[in-house]
Amino acid sequence: MTDTRPSATTPDAYVLGVDSGGSGLRVALGRAGSDGPLSTAVCAEPVRTGTGGIDAAHLLEQLLPVAAELLERAAAGGGRPANGPAGEGPTASGPTRDGSVRVAALAVGAAGMATLGGRLRAELPGALSAALGVRRLALAADAVTAYAGAVGQRPGAVVAGGTGMIALGTDLVEWRRADGWGHLLGDNGSGAWIGRAGLEAAMRAHDRRRGGSPALLDRLRAVFGPAEELPGLLYPRSDRPAVLASFAPEVAACAGADAIAAEILRRAGVHIAEAAAAVCPKDGAEADGGCEVALTGGLFRMGEPLIGPVREELARLVPQARVTTGTGDPLTGALRIARALATDDLRLPHHPTMLSVQNT
Amino acid sequence: MTDTRPSATTPDAYVLGVDSGGSGLRVALGRAGSDGPLSTAVCAEPVRTGTGGIDAAHLLEQLLPVAAELLERAAAGGGRPANGPAGEGPTASGPTRDGSVRVAALAVGAAGMATLGGRLRAELPGALSAALGVRRLALAADAVTAYAGAVGQRPGAVVAGGTGMIALGTDLVEWRRADGWGHLLGDNGSGAWIGRAGLEAAMRAHDRRRGGSPALLDRLRAVFGPAEELPGLLYPRSDRPAVLASFAPEVAACAGADAIAAEILRRAGVHIAEAAAAVCPKDGAEADGGCEVALTGGLFRMGEPLIGPVREELARLVPQARVTTGTGDPLTGALRIARALATDDLRLPHHPTMLSVQNT
Repeated sequence: MTDTRPSATTPDAYVLGVDSGGSGLRVALGRAGSDGPLSTAVCAEPVRTGTGGIDAAHLLEQLLPVAAELLERAAAGGGRPANGPAGEGPTASGPTRDGSVRVAALAVGAAGMATLGGRLRAELPGALSAALGVRRLALAADAVTAYAGAVGQRPGAVVAGGTGMIALGTDLVEWRRADGWGHLLGDNGSGAWIGRAGLEAAMRAHDRRRGGSPALLDRLRAVFGPAEELPGLLYPRSDRPAVLASFAPEVAACAGADAIAAEILRRAGVHIAEAAAAVCPKDGAEADGGCEVALTGGLFRMGEPLIGPVREELARLVPQARVTTGTGDPLTGALRIARALATDDLRLPHHPTMLSVQNT
Repeated sequence: MTDTRPSATTPDAYVLGVDSGGSGLRVALGRAGSDGPLSTAVCAEPVRTGTGGIDAAHLLEQLLPVAAELLERAAAGGGRPANGPAGEGPTASGPTRDGSVRVAALAVGAAGMATLGGRLRAELPGALSAALGVRRLALAADAVTAYAGAVGQRPGAVVAGGTGMIALGTDLVEWRRADGWGHLLGDNGSGAWIGRAGLEAAMRAHDRRRGGSPALLDRLRAVFGPAEELPGLLYPRSDRPAVLASFAPEVAACAGADAIAAEILRRAGVHIAEAAAAVCPKDGAEADGGCEVALTGGLFRMGEPLIGPVREELARLVPQARVTTGTGDPLTGALRIARALATDDLRLPHHPTMLSVQNT
């Protein structure tokens, strides 16, 4: 279905990027023909997930007023950020009342899209077309928006690390994914993995097994209290991976002076390199100056004690790899995908669950 | 408080051992003066645990009719096992109606006694005295009854392995404990640990990371279905450690032909040896023919692929250690503790939560 209405591709057509994650919903407004966001907004309430998947109605309830306000402000010539949900003013649902196309394309990146995105895929196109005049819609896994933010539309690989860890790579023909299986089946090298390894080393010091770290035991006691009471604190929690990950910065802080903590970070770096190596595109990268491997997400704020080992191990596994950090975030990635959609320039591979595109 | 009634210590006085675990309540009846049980019974319903700890009323509800029936049968000259909860017959609560001392001592071993045993310690002495004429009562952590069953009342160490793993040792002055911290903080080498390592190696084969085992991936698919759907199956379960441990036999089955599976068992054996080494009594053991380290529990049914590495590593860490297997179970241990109590011969160290003794 080719769209011929000129407003979809004029450089001043609006595009929207949306990033839905555990800490809330973030929205960025931009224009099809220029880089960067005009303005961004944050809704602090995470979108609900139920047995039917990600709650499309809850997402729309938060997104629509914010998007409408961003559009109104942009139309009024202002670009200042909206820092919360907008009120239901008379213009909040107005953009499409005159039938004009206000938003040429919108891209949503969401955690759990692959397994939980069914309702979004079914309900969002109609609702966004009706409310905002959205003509093209992309629904992307959060790893894909992380990729688009960090690497853009070139071949390469991204490692997105936080409480969990996933690697995603593409040669622009297909996606390859490694790890991201959660704290019991993988996420090797993630915040939860590092924190758990640190707590294990602390418990080993507590009961005098080999491999214990007295420094990490000190940190455990400072953060959680007596070591023997930690199981009773941890296991009843429903956010166990986050509790484990909360100890990762303690491991990083000890790594300078404690050999066991340093070794945990080194092993984490090896795991991260293994995941990156598994998804690096094999062909064509060398001609283009090597395979770009972008490290993104809060995990890599640990800096060199973690990134150094990633770089070293990756040099062994994929000599042509080139590690980058400090690149764009998933919201930037969502906006880039929306812009590429609006200008018929989406080069990242379509995929039923990772990156699905619909005309609305 | 010294008890002078002769019935407490006559060789034909009855003693009861109780083992309360995840798979139900088991009861053994014996006599103070002779080894082994006269008869045993099983209640398949596990004792409930609430916010107040192990539910003393629920334990008594199951234990009392069974104990009464075992006593009745023994008095009638029969020793055949009772294989289920006894009915509430006219004699079920009869043993103490005449005021006679029917049970000289009773020992209960329970999982979670250390942290959850408060209600048992408060409520059991009075109730058991009233209902069965129990005069001495021991409340023991399940690791202590495992020790008593496997090692008896000598110095040494036990490793109790199943879904979890804990090591306990004593020089008969104090207890030393290592690991048993649960599947996120330790239990290194346990069934959950081995199963998790096996599933991780399978997922690595699935996404083509280094360290993957195609053989374990085949077993994962045979047991759980498609690999990418395993996270969705595992994480919503409340019995995740048991699900992980259910894969441990698959790892053991692959270990003969698969180097990665064999290496998982080898590392598990090293972890188990480390825990045993941390609790081996340091003094006096050499004179007595070495420190006995008993391996007990379902984990060690894996046999040599696991026990071999334990023995090898332990020989390095504690040269005087002597590994034994196939020794008595925790129910045997509970009965032994009861018998020792009845005959004033308890040599295992008292401890507020590990092994508390009360006259009733």
